[in-house]
Amino acid sequence: MRLLFSPQLNPATESGWRRTWFDIIYRHDTPPSRNFDLLLIVVILASVSVVMLDSVDYIHARHANALYTVEWVFTLAFTLEYALRLAVVKRPLRYAFSMWGVIDLLSILPTYLSLLFPGSQSLLVVRILRILRLFRILKLVQYVEEGGVLVGALWRSRRKIFVFVCGVLTVVVIFGAVMYVVEGPEHGFDSIPMGMYWAIVTMATVGYGDIAPATTLGRFIASILILIGYSIIAVPTGIYTAELASTMRQADPKTRVLDNRGCPDCGLEGHDPQASFCRCCGSRLPPPMG
Amino acid sequence: MRLLFSPQLNPATESGWRRTWFDIIYRHDTPPSRNFDLLLIVVILASVSVVMLDSVDYIHARHANALYTVEWVFTLAFTLEYALRLAVVKRPLRYAFSMWGVIDLLSILPTYLSLLFPGSQSLLVVRILRILRLFRILKLVQYVEEGGVLVGALWRSRRKIFVFVCGVLTVVVIFGAVMYVVEGPEHGFDSIPMGMYWAIVTMATVGYGDIAPATTLGRFIASILILIGYSIIAVPTGIYTAELASTMRQADPKTRVLDNRGCPDCGLEGHDPQASFCRCCGSRLPPPMG
Amino acid sequence: MRLLFSPQLNPATESGWRRTWFDIIYRHDTPPSRNFDLLLIVVILASVSVVMLDSVDYIHARHANALYTVEWVFTLAFTLEYALRLAVVKRPLRYAFSMWGVIDLLSILPTYLSLLFPGSQSLLVVRILRILRLFRILKLVQYVEEGGVLVGALWRSRRKIFVFVCGVLTVVVIFGAVMYVVEGPEHGFDSIPMGMYWAIVTMATVGYGDIAPATTLGRFIASILILIGYSIIAVPTGIYTAELASTMRQADPKTRVLDNRGCPDCGLEGHDPQASFCRCCGSRLPPPMG
Amino acid sequence: MRLLFSPQLNPATESGWRRTWFDIIYRHDTPPSRNFDLLLIVVILASVSVVMLDSVDYIHARHANALYTVEWVFTLAFTLEYALRLAVVKRPLRYAFSMWGVIDLLSILPTYLSLLFPGSQSLLVVRILRILRLFRILKLVQYVEEGGVLVGALWRSRRKIFVFVCGVLTVVVIFGAVMYVVEGPEHGFDSIPMGMYWAIVTMATVGYGDIAPATTLGRFIASILILIGYSIIAVPTGIYTAELASTMRQADPKTRVLDNRGCPDCGLEGHDPQASFCRCCGSRLPPPMG
Repeated sequence: MRLLFSPQLNPATESGWRRTWFDIIYRHDTPPSRNFDLLLIVVILASVSVVMLDSVDYIHARHANALYTVEWVFTLAFTLEYALRLAVVKRPLRYAFSMWGVIDLLSILPTYLSLLFPGSQSLLVVRILRILRLFRILKLVQYVEEGGVLVGALWRSRRKIFVFVCGVLTVVVIFGAVMYVVEGPEHGFDSIPMGMYWAIVTMATVGYGDIAPATTLGRFIASILILIGYSIIAVPTGIYTAELASTMRQADPKTRVLDNRGCPDCGLEGHDPQASFCRCCGSRLPPPMG
Repeated sequence: MRLLFSPQLNPATESGWRRTWFDIIYRHDTPPSRNFDLLLIVVILASVSVVMLDSVDYIHARHANALYTVEWVFTLAFTLEYALRLAVVKRPLRYAFSMWGVIDLLSILPTYLSLLFPGSQSLLVVRILRILRLFRILKLVQYVEEGGVLVGALWRSRRKIFVFVCGVLTVVVIFGAVMYVVEGPEHGFDSIPMGMYWAIVTMATVGYGDIAPATTLGRFIASILILIGYSIIAVPTGIYTAELASTMRQADPKTRVLDNRGCPDCGLEGHDPQASFCRCCGSRLPPPMG
Repeated sequence: MRLLFSPQLNPATESGWRRTWFDIIYRHDTPPSRNFDLLLIVVILASVSVVMLDSVDYIHARHANALYTVEWVFTLAFTLEYALRLAVVKRPLRYAFSMWGVIDLLSILPTYLSLLFPGSQSLLVVRILRILRLFRILKLVQYVEEGGVLVGALWRSRRKIFVFVCGVLTVVVIFGAVMYVVEGPEHGFDSIPMGMYWAIVTMATVGYGDIAPATTLGRFIASILILIGYSIIAVPTGIYTAELASTMRQADPKTRVLDNRGCPDCGLEGHDPQASFCRCCGSRLPPPMG
Repeated sequence: MRLLFSPQLNPATESGWRRTWFDIIYRHDTPPSRNFDLLLIVVILASVSVVMLDSVDYIHARHANALYTVEWVFTLAFTLEYALRLAVVKRPLRYAFSMWGVIDLLSILPTYLSLLFPGSQSLLVVRILRILRLFRILKLVQYVEEGGVLVGALWRSRRKIFVFVCGVLTVVVIFGAVMYVVEGPEHGFDSIPMGMYWAIVTMATVGYGDIAPATTLGRFIASILILIGYSIIAVPTGIYTAELASTMRQADPKTRVLDNRGCPDCGLEGHDPQASFCRCCGSRLPPPMG
């Protein structure tokens, strides 16, 4: 998580415009900084939309010049923001080499590079990285309590989900190899990785249909894989739901199981709210504070 | 929610037929008003069915005249209902400009307009709005307790689901752009919005197969996206299930949440809200404060 | 449920072979009757398998005669069982007109009818009803406790699921009609029912791809429908999970919330297991029995 | 489960290199044995990758010789490991005929057999069994607590899931037969098993689209099947989630289930298993009985 939320560096202790701008850019809890965050999101969304629209042939053919101009405006705005971030932070290099600093640089670089190397297609590969700035929005999510609960439950269940994905991948390898042998290249299964692609597409119930079993045995094996996938599709949902329910139950003050009174004698905490005596040493407990 | 359930205006205090009809049309808790609601649902379903049947070429070719007649009958019936609603309500304009008033008007307008402008194709766009009247049924749902619990839990989890959909959309934009670069127009990914459409179809495990990755790298990226989708498909289910379980636990009298009255004698808290005596020492409890 | 489990008629009080066979055929809790049930399931599965195999061209061309013979054997066995059921039951007509009696008759009729009317194709429509006998297996499910819990939770959540399906159908009608107008017959949406079929296939994330949006606007609308479906796919799962968790929590003796001691004074039941005094009248309660 | 984890035989009590290697190979809780397990997983993953890469035409055409050499290196390494396992275990035959012993043998046999019978295609069928060694990883899962919880909950819900799959299969048979009759061979439903394959693909929301209903009646029946599948997709998730939530609640020390010791003084039950004194009257409790 530190990688994701790292650029909250120590504020420059000096006063003046740097302090003011540091608060606006890096903090998220004052009215001006919130407005700045909102403006940034709007501008990022707008710039991503321009990249999107530019990729549509119909629009590119008609409005290439206008989009090119707008793109330069956004690039200059992002450049100004990048310079400002470097200027007000205590350790500019540390920001420049953090994840967000690199993304900020990469999101403005391609437009400048296009002046030197006017090759558009190869450039495009770098240009889409600007879309990663959308993750900035996720930075705000931590201040939305809802988002915090969601990400928290997902984060705590990360190990269970990893183990589950490993098990799924084992099944995918086996069924991919079996289908490669059973169906063979003449029905589209022209390698084991292709069979694994089919198995993933099938188990996750996506089912494009670009590759589908064509023999009776292949269809029988596919049916078994589908039933396996159908039976274990519950696992990630179960993991997450149980974790989230546990989080919400503990957050809910009405169903909190144990209170936080400490025993005056032995210091033991975590008593039943209805307990009058310490369950460890038998001393009388103070009345619960609610 | 007010937008959805707003037309329950204050009853006209005068007695007579207006009062009678107001009760029939706008209330939902007396036998005549329930019968009226039921009749309305049946008529709406029937009129929607006629629009549906009329869209089938085979039926339109054979029964165009009969369907046209039936459509006029429904239009006249709805017109009568609309006039009645305006006549008995206290502030007719307020109803006319409410959501339901506008839908009611729009559902009868196209048939009258077809007399003046006999263009059928452009008319059809407006005609389908009549189908929105089906939402009327949802108005009744609030009286079915089951529906109330469902909508309530969905409503309380709306912010979590919104945050989740935002996160999904970020992933969709990134993968859509990546696939546009990797696969390119020759495999159907002819713009970033098209790539986003593919990413949504893939993540939600719909998988039409009208656009599917055709290169090895594209299939690898698709597999990663599918596994991401498979791992987080749990999130909306988890949100909703935890919320619904919490609702049902509180509604269940056997697991009713305990109140916070303290026993005047022994100080024990956490009594049943219906308890009159402390279950530990037998002293009389103060009345519950709600 | 009565329709499904109705043929458990009162036993014929007379002794003799009728009583013996009644116990074997209609009861499910003695060793002979359990063996009979098991045998019946095996025979039904075998007869269904024969119907299945006979539908495969390759097998029908080679083993038509053998399959025909086996079919007659099964038909005679089922006829014998049907006659026996009529013979030992108290009110044969009531059984004959119950759901299971009708299915039993229909499952043997087609083979006899094929002697009189040798039209195979039209006969097949009736022949498949024999497969419904598989539901017999579900009758046994009620004796497997696991099945009882599953069906019970599904049964208790039936009203919630019905309300949910109604809401889904409303969305399906609206999006089906919108797509019919937006995409039109030239992209496969040649009527509103066809659009509804597409909307159901899309919302449930099946996504055959036989009909898929081909215009930009259509794809945008499809994306919205997919996101709606993705957000509310949680609802049936949430309903069922919350119901099942509630059932399992109440079935688990360790987490049972209320005990079954009755107050000696006022008779009130449902006390907290830790209570020493009645919460209603303050009388001392008997000690909990565990 | 014994089948899966059986090869943990009694250690040879003799000291010396056998004891050392037994600990390294068969135990999983010492640093050397953990390193061995990790090395084994890496080697298995590498050997499976080689089989995968070899199945890709493009790579096979260029690097057939290099891959052949690497395959022999892996085969010799696995042979050495197999010999070592037989050498240090107490009852070599019991290991050789256990599930893992057979898989270990099968994973090295094909390469040796290819010297005698140079038929590559038929050999491939056996070669993929080596991929089953990936299940070795699952052996480690039991030491990862997360994996234990997941597999445990899945194992305890196995009967419920089996009953559910039986019910799904019944629906699959009926709808497969109905669609065979309704759609017929001209739309791809050329036998009842093919209809069942379609029904499974549809109910599990995979939806390849290789076979899709083409008639109006068929589409209507498909819609019903989809809605059934959509309504009961909740069941496995509900089963697993409820089971997992129950497991996690019991594992959570804060919501630990209360034991059934009664207080010798006041008779209060439901104490915390770690409590030494009654929380209501302060008397000393008897020691917990476990």
